[in-house]
Amino acid sequence: MTIQQISWTPENTVRYLDQTQLPGEEVYREAATVDDMIVAIQTLQVRGAPLIGVAAAMGLAAAAQTVDHRELTPAWVESQIERLGAARPTAVNLMWAMSRMRDTAARMFGEGKVGKGIVAELRQEAQAIWDEDRAMCRSIGEVGAGLIPERATVLTICNAGALATGGIGTALAALYVAAERGKNMEVLSCETRPLRQGARLTAWELLHAGIPVTSIVDGAVGAVMARGGIDLAISGADRIATNGDVANKIGTYGLAVLARAHGIPFYVAAPRSTFDLSIESGEEIPIEERGPEELDPAPGARVHNPAFDVTPAEYVSAIVTDAGLLQPPYSESIPRIFQREESNVD
Amino acid sequence: MTIQQISWTPENTVRYLDQTQLPGEEVYREAATVDDMIVAIQTLQVRGAPLIGVAAAMGLAAAAQTVDHRELTPAWVESQIERLGAARPTAVNLMWAMSRMRDTAARMFGEGKVGKGIVAELRQEAQAIWDEDRAMCRSIGEVGAGLIPERATVLTICNAGALATGGIGTALAALYVAAERGKNMEVLSCETRPLRQGARLTAWELLHAGIPVTSIVDGAVGAVMARGGIDLAISGADRIATNGDVANKIGTYGLAVLARAHGIPFYVAAPRSTFDLSIESGEEIPIEERGPEELDPAPGARVHNPAFDVTPAEYVSAIVTDAGLLQPPYSESIPRIFQREESNVD
Repeated sequence: MTIQQISWTPENTVRYLDQTQLPGEEVYREAATVDDMIVAIQTLQVRGAPLIGVAAAMGLAAAAQTVDHRELTPAWVESQIERLGAARPTAVNLMWAMSRMRDTAARMFGEGKVGKGIVAELRQEAQAIWDEDRAMCRSIGEVGAGLIPERATVLTICNAGALATGGIGTALAALYVAAERGKNMEVLSCETRPLRQGARLTAWELLHAGIPVTSIVDGAVGAVMARGGIDLAISGADRIATNGDVANKIGTYGLAVLARAHGIPFYVAAPRSTFDLSIESGEEIPIEERGPEELDPAPGARVHNPAFDVTPAEYVSAIVTDAGLLQPPYSESIPRIFQREESNVD
Repeated sequence: MTIQQISWTPENTVRYLDQTQLPGEEVYREAATVDDMIVAIQTLQVRGAPLIGVAAAMGLAAAAQTVDHRELTPAWVESQIERLGAARPTAVNLMWAMSRMRDTAARMFGEGKVGKGIVAELRQEAQAIWDEDRAMCRSIGEVGAGLIPERATVLTICNAGALATGGIGTALAALYVAAERGKNMEVLSCETRPLRQGARLTAWELLHAGIPVTSIVDGAVGAVMARGGIDLAISGADRIATNGDVANKIGTYGLAVLARAHGIPFYVAAPRSTFDLSIESGEEIPIEERGPEELDPAPGARVHNPAFDVTPAEYVSAIVTDAGLLQPPYSESIPRIFQREESNVD
């Protein structure tokens, strides 16, 4: 069984699993204000590109109900959206979710709604974002499961699972659906320093779902590929540019280059909310530099701690999305799924 | 100033810096018996291929003086050499040093020496191994310094410095000699999970010597290379086969593949005691699998924890040795330095 990472409390605040405490303890916390949610996101209690978007939307809706009706103005909503949107810079899902909340608020204020009416609409939109994320995860899983051979050995990095989304994950969704279809597999999980999301979170949630997992250090990626027997590598994404360049957890780029050198396909799994069609290439993606303390450096040593890297599209064998499997050239296949979306809406 | 990692106590036992306590504390310990030294090596209080060889030889000499004269037999010496030689499987310097101690003991017993005579000769041979290692480090530094441009940015992995040898190191010796010659440089030090020798030891000893160092996680190697500005990568080695394949700390192979992909030269620095001419290629090098606890895995997760990997010779731009700089093809340049050595002896 996969984990339910986020939910509403009976009081319509946000209940979430504090991922910094895993795998030792399952600690659930509550975010009732925008400040609560910003802290949760910045300290990585809540993490994973899709989940950050869902959580920020839910956090905004929760916070709106705590505000006096007269203070629930377009200016208040906009300032909270800006603060939440700036909590972390790399994952575009956060900006995408905030943009939807902004549009909803603008529409409601435009219709002359106030107070509880606004709160209800914000909550409904947050719920829609969550529901859609859950559905996107499921679709990604259905598409991705087709890439997993029987008795597969799969390499993954960081955590692109249920803990990173509102649903069953992105990269790991492919494994969960493959397992539902009766396929056996073995997962090699890169530790993913500095915060060890692979060793702590991916291992924990896969074991929770009954999928065997072996932890390796990030430096062992080359050695395990050279040893042979790895069928594919798969990761999530924090932002995908129009040309198919992928920002994801630091280490993904090296893994992709090594996969290419060993003839192993490297797949990226992400919902449409992870694509940023406003940028042409990965060069335009801001990379978050996190604090030196995450590396526990020797006293006096400087630290360079980029949380993400950019994998050029040429190293990505295919992108698994909720709108199907995208093949290179991505500058053609990526815009197509958004054109289709727009024409569906029309 | 570089660190003096190992020395004799006034009682002719072995004094060494416990590297597991760095960078927090400088704790010196004493090994008086073979058991003491085996524990020190296996727990990585004493580590680094050249240092392990020196320390094991010194440990054997120290232990010999504690044994009753009648028990100091060829059988005792051989059994202790076998135990020390098996303490760690990958670094060939250990076998090399034990082989020299075996030859010395055999010569002394052959000459009819007993008791203190044997002890004195074993200590003298251990001292010779240490002295030669120190000289080899210096020579490596002189050769390697020529590869370091002015204002260089150098990437390194694990610790191939003074802490890993009886002298000023192997890979880091090149930096120390370059610094002596007035060159400025900046070192990027890979953390080197699981035991963090880069973050703990390399950073500590470089800062001790006044060379600026920046810590990165192992997964950031690709990102820092892609960013540009790295002039070269350099590592030590635990064993080098006749064809130039290099066993070194896990992560070295991935680093070498990434260096090649970015057009960055990757050098290996090692003394002649690190070459194993009894094997043709890296496939024959035993790779130590260390315990799962080093990864602190999620409960229930399996762990694959190889301490080393093998970098095929094709990824090694040149090998810096105490006998000069070796260029490909290594199957020609490596045997040549040993032929020269033999003909010098003749």
